[in-house]
Amino acid sequence: MIRNILLKIEYDGTNYSGWQSQKNSRSIQDTTEAALKRITGRKARLISCGRTDAGVHALGQIANFKTASHILLYKLQRGLNSVLPKDIVIKEIREAPLKFHSRFDARSKVYTYTILNGPAPAAISRNYVHHVPYKLNFGLMRREARCLVGKHDFKSFQAADKVERSSIRTIKRLDIKKAGNSIKITVEADGFLYNMVRNIIGTLVEIGRGRLKPGSMGKILKAKNRKLAGPTAPAKGLCLTEVKY
Amino acid sequence: MIRNILLKIEYDGTNYSGWQSQKNSRSIQDTTEAALKRITGRKARLISCGRTDAGVHALGQIANFKTASHILLYKLQRGLNSVLPKDIVIKEIREAPLKFHSRFDARSKVYTYTILNGPAPAAISRNYVHHVPYKLNFGLMRREARCLVGKHDFKSFQAADKVERSSIRTIKRLDIKKAGNSIKITVEADGFLYNMVRNIIGTLVEIGRGRLKPGSMGKILKAKNRKLAGPTAPAKGLCLTEVKY
Repeated sequence: MIRNILLKIEYDGTNYSGWQSQKNSRSIQDTTEAALKRITGRKARLISCGRTDAGVHALGQIANFKTASHILLYKLQRGLNSVLPKDIVIKEIREAPLKFHSRFDARSKVYTYTILNGPAPAAISRNYVHHVPYKLNFGLMRREARCLVGKHDFKSFQAADKVERSSIRTIKRLDIKKAGNSIKITVEADGFLYNMVRNIIGTLVEIGRGRLKPGSMGKILKAKNRKLAGPTAPAKGLCLTEVKY
Repeated sequence: MIRNILLKIEYDGTNYSGWQSQKNSRSIQDTTEAALKRITGRKARLISCGRTDAGVHALGQIANFKTASHILLYKLQRGLNSVLPKDIVIKEIREAPLKFHSRFDARSKVYTYTILNGPAPAAISRNYVHHVPYKLNFGLMRREARCLVGKHDFKSFQAADKVERSSIRTIKRLDIKKAGNSIKITVEADGFLYNMVRNIIGTLVEIGRGRLKPGSMGKILKAKNRKLAGPTAPAKGLCLTEVKY
């Protein structure tokens, strides 16, 4: 009997080339598939809700795979966590309906981006935050970000070299919160273009430090031109926190 | 003219043998002193508010050193942060009165210990939390910890092989907070015995998982016998967060 098993995976992306299997590099997918083979004795192909880039982290990546193995779920989880490197952890495991597909069935994904805004960088969280030493106008960043919420053509925030058929997406939520020196930006959308969150963050930082005028975000969004937006913010500040089905 | 310069240091203790300079091992102190020499051109001896063990972290270690260097403070901070490894960061720097002494003048120190209480370990924070997979009785842990607050002889929580002249200390504050799977214990005291926080945490975990009865903490404290307390909790969950003067 074929089973469809769903994994919720946490990983520290620092030492990986990203989620997706690639030749001559160490991906989260390959590493996890190798662990699956070791524990179940069978090859399996993981389908994830989406790729994450090199250096991007996940608290709640979702992936599923089909297998004829009869292994009990708790044994599979324990086995995987015992053979996986410590920077990849299977947080949850469950049976899914056979037709469940991690990517096609996802209703929305939630990413969090963390900026450390202060004169000195971080030691402990150095791989998980983007250090911005310049003074940022937090209130302005919040106001400017508002126009992104809703259904829009996000072409201006799409990686120039990875154009998709349609660049229309719906941002359901965009929260910006500050606690001490830390600024956390949470973005929930029905889908994301390649580098979309990092390009939005890069633009927000340019606005926050005064290199783009108030009102810029709306203009950039309307222009549908990648050249007007800010630079791509570093991968390490980004984390896939949740996938909703 | 001799200056006394105070540093507030953040470090990730994972890859160090601890604060204190030791032969044949990589300490935070040696690494920071080497950076000082490189930037000021002079040897200097750092006096810290206290040692931290191998694997223990700091968000706010305080250390001072005397120097005849005329270097401007902001240049010194920038220089140090550019030559230090990325897991040590000078967060703040300032001139202190010549008689200021990081250890003797400290009124209290604040440590935070983080427990991840859930079935699966952490990937992202794997070096900063102690994973406890057993169900913990959080309410009981809180109640039991209360008796530790105040001036007591903490002999039961002192490392057996590093006995100090007096084991009397005053715990000014002991907070236990829970957020999701994470339990954070904050302890502020006028001073700590060697391994004191980690031995208190180890005992609290034994109580929380039901291996020591309710009421045990008070009895252990009164007994002044290290053998009755729980095991020493792992170093990686511990962080020196603040020193008060």
